[in-house]
Amino acid sequence: MRPNGIITLTTDFGLTDSYVGSMKGVILGIAPSVRLVDITHAIGPQDTHQAAHILKTFYQYFPPGTIHLVIVDPGVGSQRRAIAFQTPEAIFIAPDNGILTEVWSDARARWGHEGCMVVELAERRYWRDHVSNTFHGRDIFAPAAAHLAAGVQLTAFGPRLLSIHESTFEQATLGRNGELVGRIIHVDHFGNCITNITPRELERAGKGKNLTITIIDQHIHELHQTYSDGPIGALIALIGSSDHLELAVRNGNAAQTLGVGIGDIVRVR
Amino acid sequence: MRPNGIITLTTDFGLTDSYVGSMKGVILGIAPSVRLVDITHAIGPQDTHQAAHILKTFYQYFPPGTIHLVIVDPGVGSQRRAIAFQTPEAIFIAPDNGILTEVWSDARARWGHEGCMVVELAERRYWRDHVSNTFHGRDIFAPAAAHLAAGVQLTAFGPRLLSIHESTFEQATLGRNGELVGRIIHVDHFGNCITNITPRELERAGKGKNLTITIIDQHIHELHQTYSDGPIGALIALIGSSDHLELAVRNGNAAQTLGVGIGDIVRVR
Amino acid sequence: MRPNGIITLTTDFGLTDSYVGSMKGVILGIAPSVRLVDITHAIGPQDTHQAAHILKTFYQYFPPGTIHLVIVDPGVGSQRRAIAFQTPEAIFIAPDNGILTEVWSDARARWGHEGCMVVELAERRYWRDHVSNTFHGRDIFAPAAAHLAAGVQLTAFGPRLLSIHESTFEQATLGRNGELVGRIIHVDHFGNCITNITPRELERAGKGKNLTITIIDQHIHELHQTYSDGPIGALIALIGSSDHLELAVRNGNAAQTLGVGIGDIVRVR
Repeated sequence: MRPNGIITLTTDFGLTDSYVGSMKGVILGIAPSVRLVDITHAIGPQDTHQAAHILKTFYQYFPPGTIHLVIVDPGVGSQRRAIAFQTPEAIFIAPDNGILTEVWSDARARWGHEGCMVVELAERRYWRDHVSNTFHGRDIFAPAAAHLAAGVQLTAFGPRLLSIHESTFEQATLGRNGELVGRIIHVDHFGNCITNITPRELERAGKGKNLTITIIDQHIHELHQTYSDGPIGALIALIGSSDHLELAVRNGNAAQTLGVGIGDIVRVR
Repeated sequence: MRPNGIITLTTDFGLTDSYVGSMKGVILGIAPSVRLVDITHAIGPQDTHQAAHILKTFYQYFPPGTIHLVIVDPGVGSQRRAIAFQTPEAIFIAPDNGILTEVWSDARARWGHEGCMVVELAERRYWRDHVSNTFHGRDIFAPAAAHLAAGVQLTAFGPRLLSIHESTFEQATLGRNGELVGRIIHVDHFGNCITNITPRELERAGKGKNLTITIIDQHIHELHQTYSDGPIGALIALIGSSDHLELAVRNGNAAQTLGVGIGDIVRVR
Repeated sequence: MRPNGIITLTTDFGLTDSYVGSMKGVILGIAPSVRLVDITHAIGPQDTHQAAHILKTFYQYFPPGTIHLVIVDPGVGSQRRAIAFQTPEAIFIAPDNGILTEVWSDARARWGHEGCMVVELAERRYWRDHVSNTFHGRDIFAPAAAHLAAGVQLTAFGPRLLSIHESTFEQATLGRNGELVGRIIHVDHFGNCITNITPRELERAGKGKNLTITIIDQHIHELHQTYSDGPIGALIALIGSSDHLELAVRNGNAAQTLGVGIGDIVRVR
């Protein structure tokens, strides 16, 4: 895979400090012609699960050769490893704390063990000269992304690893009574509640035209096609743009209206 | 008009999700050398009026050939059209829901019917292969902007339209008693209250040196030149940077101090 | 110093309006190939002290030749001067209201009077044709940054100045009882409380292994190396990434937990 010069940035750093800016300065000092694309810096502080979810929603829309830098790093300065994971289409750079669980699993399903390579960012030559204990985003991860973009081979950064730290993400489960039970895994800016239930799971569970989706004490009896389907203010369910079952209120905020959030249970009968 | 390679982005998507990032990935996959400029992603959810107002405040500061992508799209997936509107200076891409009302009207006043062209983005060749029902920003609008930036002619995207959907924006009105009555149309980040009253309307209404501006029970008896004119904490009125009558509090937040917001009435006598 | 084509932007404009976007449009109209890097637009309204602090935390991470535009401008339209300050490594453009106090003082300590040059942005040729009274960021500062990036020499912008407006920033003080007394000068996105106490001051005060840091009624008896050192939820102290003494709560928000903020006193014994 040849880097295409694009580096995306996803962090929990927020936009009120200069943390993101400092990382960009470091990158541009090493690779002046890269193109930096902010995804979000509003991942919940230390929320590696949310980072893993967000990463899954965007990486496939970038052209081949893109480098994705994902820094949510509660263990900075501890023994957790810094890693870079390369597939035939992209490179992911992150702390080895579970953030890459799903792209790792998707990539191995698609390209097999041989198609993927992961290394530890152990080679100090590609770190900043002075490495702080508290900001490896700036001192280790950003320089790695820049050197990769500038053409350094992945194998130069450190020893190849055979596995990464994988987090457990709760899957929707199919009960004996034929009920599919999932959870809200993300509430977006509009208040739409994205669940961990996929169309494939709905299909497997034999949920077609006649289904009832229940959240708290609210029942929804059909899948809509779009947010603008149905009356304003009505609670609807649909397959959203990231290909998951999603609850929404037309021109409203479903999470607020229902008083629900991440982790709340959604049942499909 | 030849595109200059700049695409601006204005949406109600927020910055906590990857929606904006996905759009950028799609654009860069089609037109790798474009320059993306975020204007704001904090338009109120579904607030097409606010989007129309914000658009008017910035587009003229960009160099000729800029493409402006404005996605506030409560009707996504419904029958509302997707359009691109070209003037001799810029191209605007948006859902046909009133967002372009004012630039359309300004452009026709300036260049006439012949100087402007609007088409429906109907040609599927310029959409993403898979088009979701809920995210045309990523699947239809972003690819259109990218293909236009890459040199595809406007006429290739679909049939020419003779008109667009125009929203009604309330104008300031001149009463029989000589009172000019307007409203707050925007509250900015500093709490400055921007009204729909322009210097031209003040002039037409004969409001010169001797004027009284009233909001709620507060009266202002002169126009100041700058925010730093007058004592700290005092309520002042001035013509702001977007050329509208504006209420401000020096080093303070006028909207909070007055307890006012969008839609509140401002009178000039 | 030859500009490297990078312009960073730091303002109190927020991201809900088009103010930042308009500045970028103006810059790109003059210097189409510059690379714009947002640092933050969330400086507190009119908070020149915060701007000065943030500036100090990032500028040294950008490559030589970077132009830093810092616009927090409560005196816009008044007699305060607009200035550009050049060192052998960077150019800073800002209103002359104290924002540049610390970079000015650092630069003169490092390169002496001869190594630095500051001019007033007085030459109207490098302003926008129409200059508003309320938005010099767009009409004076942004064009200056763009023209500098495009190769115009600093001396062309106006008369050389011998000094700038310097703000007073409170320093940590060493009491007769050997107590070092500082203050919180910044609370970051994670709630970490950054003080004005530097490692050098700790050393000078003879604070080594045996120290007690006190805030409100909480005592900390050692310096940790990283955020992940110590139990989750515990209050710790460490030297943070900007090389200041910092209070943090592992996987938590120190400012919220302690109920403290900018200006609160931190004592080291």
